[in-house]
Amino acid sequence: MSEQQELGITESKEYATGEWYAEVIQKAELADYAPMGGFIVTRPRGYALWENLQSHLDSWFKDTGVTNAYFPVFIPESYLEKEKDIVEGFDPEVAWVTKGGYDELEEPLAVRPTSESIITPFLAQWTRSHRDLPHRVNQWCSVVRWEATETKPFFRTKEFLWQEGHTAHEDEDGAWDETMTRLSQYERLYEDVLAIPVLKGRKPAHDKFPGAHTTTTVEALMPDGKSVQGGTSHYLGTSFAEAYDVTYVDEDEEEQTAHTTSWGLSWRALGALIMTHSDDQGLVVPPAMAPTQVVIVPIWQEDTKDDVLEYAQDLEAELGDRYRVKLDDRDERNPGFKFNEWELKGVPLRVEVGPNEVEDEEVTLNHRPDGESETVDREGLVETVDDHLDAIFAKLKARAEENLEENVREAESREEILGTLGQHKGYVKAPWCGDEACEEPIKDAMAAEIVMVPLDRDAEPIGDECAICGADAEETAYFAKSY
Amino acid sequence: MSEQQELGITESKEYATGEWYAEVIQKAELADYAPMGGFIVTRPRGYALWENLQSHLDSWFKDTGVTNAYFPVFIPESYLEKEKDIVEGFDPEVAWVTKGGYDELEEPLAVRPTSESIITPFLAQWTRSHRDLPHRVNQWCSVVRWEATETKPFFRTKEFLWQEGHTAHEDEDGAWDETMTRLSQYERLYEDVLAIPVLKGRKPAHDKFPGAHTTTTVEALMPDGKSVQGGTSHYLGTSFAEAYDVTYVDEDEEEQTAHTTSWGLSWRALGALIMTHSDDQGLVVPPAMAPTQVVIVPIWQEDTKDDVLEYAQDLEAELGDRYRVKLDDRDERNPGFKFNEWELKGVPLRVEVGPNEVEDEEVTLNHRPDGESETVDREGLVETVDDHLDAIFAKLKARAEENLEENVREAESREEILGTLGQHKGYVKAPWCGDEACEEPIKDAMAAEIVMVPLDRDAEPIGDECAICGADAEETAYFAKSY
Ligand SMILES: [Zn+2]
Ligand SMILES: [Zn+2]
Repeated sequence: MSEQQELGITESKEYATGEWYAEVIQKAELADYAPMGGFIVTRPRGYALWENLQSHLDSWFKDTGVTNAYFPVFIPESYLEKEKDIVEGFDPEVAWVTKGGYDELEEPLAVRPTSESIITPFLAQWTRSHRDLPHRVNQWCSVVRWEATETKPFFRTKEFLWQEGHTAHEDEDGAWDETMTRLSQYERLYEDVLAIPVLKGRKPAHDKFPGAHTTTTVEALMPDGKSVQGGTSHYLGTSFAEAYDVTYVDEDEEEQTAHTTSWGLSWRALGALIMTHSDDQGLVVPPAMAPTQVVIVPIWQEDTKDDVLEYAQDLEAELGDRYRVKLDDRDERNPGFKFNEWELKGVPLRVEVGPNEVEDEEVTLNHRPDGESETVDREGLVETVDDHLDAIFAKLKARAEENLEENVREAESREEILGTLGQHKGYVKAPWCGDEACEEPIKDAMAAEIVMVPLDRDAEPIGDECAICGADAEETAYFAKSY
Repeated sequence: MSEQQELGITESKEYATGEWYAEVIQKAELADYAPMGGFIVTRPRGYALWENLQSHLDSWFKDTGVTNAYFPVFIPESYLEKEKDIVEGFDPEVAWVTKGGYDELEEPLAVRPTSESIITPFLAQWTRSHRDLPHRVNQWCSVVRWEATETKPFFRTKEFLWQEGHTAHEDEDGAWDETMTRLSQYERLYEDVLAIPVLKGRKPAHDKFPGAHTTTTVEALMPDGKSVQGGTSHYLGTSFAEAYDVTYVDEDEEEQTAHTTSWGLSWRALGALIMTHSDDQGLVVPPAMAPTQVVIVPIWQEDTKDDVLEYAQDLEAELGDRYRVKLDDRDERNPGFKFNEWELKGVPLRVEVGPNEVEDEEVTLNHRPDGESETVDREGLVETVDDHLDAIFAKLKARAEENLEENVREAESREEILGTLGQHKGYVKAPWCGDEACEEPIKDAMAAEIVMVPLDRDAEPIGDECAICGADAEETAYFAKSY
């Protein structure tokens, strides 16, 4: 196999999405498979995506009253058991530490699958008066869920990176506002940073987070027609506060129970990002997320090398003040090889400079997503690059929006739901009675499920009768296959 | 107990250092004890210290070629066993996951105690040619070491936060330079950010990192005369590269073995920070590390409240552009209470504004470390605050430097070492033959050990004969009690 072939993507996004995705992950050097099934190694270019995502979300959290903290990686079994829904929901997928050094532990420790059961008791400890509320803590960490599924980097792994926020409030209004604030920040991350439009909704009652009053979600449609649960924000009501005793004395000196929330977004967002924009040449990501935003490729002959390189180095210095820039001045590679390599690795904008550009005081810009190319003046280049990066973001966003707009359909019967999903995938909206049993026939027939219902509980369903059972419709269900 | 008493520190730093430290940690809201012995909960004000430390060190790493990555939290037992020193060194203190969900695992998984044995195999996988080197990856994560000791937040915990860097190079020169670069960055962190002078040195051969060729260290002297190992940088030679097969083809097409390094700094740096500068009023930290750098306390009567508050809000807006500022405008607390609370919580600079300051267009500044107070013009306040924060840093640094300078002493015999350590603590330098056996009598008598020897292997020892056994001295040993 030649180096060129080995370097490039060989699978087709359209016809072999799964294989193509795995190839992009490995060849763009985002992640490798770890020796234990279900685990991955996040390589520097993959981890840089996570750092770029963090820098946005974390600053929005901090601007809205959230402080970061760190709670233990282990949770005693007895703590996990205090909230019955949590233990029932997570027990089958907990990894247990049973030995420390050469000794058996007296009480097994769960490797955190989520931290409500260790964080909520501390929210209780820190809360006496209404003046102590709200509490808003977040942690960036990894969690472990022992699910026996095929590994798919960033989508399905036994350990994954995420952030989990946990808050306590005086009343339902405060906690519900919090739930919506975080959901909106997830929406903003997808739409303004990842260039992926999302639908906001609620999970159906039978698919809520264990113990939650309401689970809200942002759902993103992938190019293969499957939905990704992009982030969830839970209004937990008083169930956790009651289980772990988060009470406070209100202004009238009465003891009250707090209302809590939790909300999390994992590296699955990176999976959605990579899946959405990348193509058969490799990784494509919007500029704000790219580990390298601009690559400068000098094109020289022996006699023009010095001039071209000097010009390229000046560009690197100027652009480097504002962007993450790489000058690829390797001697042992030709420009074509370099073009391919940086396309594979997802650099949004390529700056080409050869003797002509040097002479005319110009540079040639090339957009990663579609190869659009333009020769522009050297002068004012920083502003020009700004405009081009904006244009690249807009192209990616527009394409993803088009995919979503074209793929929300309606259906009024079980046959129509199945037929429409079978033909088009995407989302199929149908009136629904609210009974989990009416999801079964769709699940059984084609592994699609109700991924969300409208956020607004008072929204009228799109039809009067449940498309499955014919009973009175309570809400509009969005059916889709999902990751 | 009145609120005032409950809020303040009751223990003495000088006479009950351990109890005082524990009280500062809890009352300044830095950390709490977790339900499992040996674990702590890092509260937002404590975690902010870690974030501030990270922001400095991480940017220096990135400026010098390091990229962040993330490797699994678990390491298969068989991987841990590939490097015999690692397994011998860490086996007694590994926490083992033996169950996933309801099933026993076929192979136990170690919760990472350090990641050489999972990272080095991937450095091998990513390395074919000399052009692929050097590799420099770092991860910010937690590690678990099941040591049965009394919990001391940030100093002794079974789980701790740290960064671990792992690099591979063509030869010893490259790897040794790397080892020194990271050690210098640790020194810079302590001296320029934490305001703590350190000694750079090597660990004696019997106290090296398992499998390392050379372990280098920065040592910080605490006010109670004990040394803290502040960060270590290991030149690993080829032992790990051989065990995990990190080889490359050099320019002459010959296969070569790489040389590797690893280097780590943990939240023990926060323990050293808190221990060094804090006092009987609570937490003291230098400005760059402080979660809140400036607190504005308005002082009003009923008739001056509006004017004073408006003035204070203007200050908050102006200073907030540059510093982490808190305006404490609580109605229910008097200024004295607020002064105490923010002193306890370690805000380096207090800005007081009352009707006089408003009238004269001035503000009164008060330094946390020593209460020095000055009334300054409102105009040019940002620059004035800059100067005062620098002055606060300088005060803290000078005090810590004085402590170190006064507490490095020399001794020429076993009796003198024991007598000097017994009387003064601190460091005692003595000529040493290099034999671990000569550390024993000092260890046995007063739990002091050789914390370092000079970095320069060719440095002449300070005497000709080992202070313990009288054999030829090979180097100068620094004896100290340590954390
Ligand atoms: Zn129905
Ligand atoms: Zn000796």
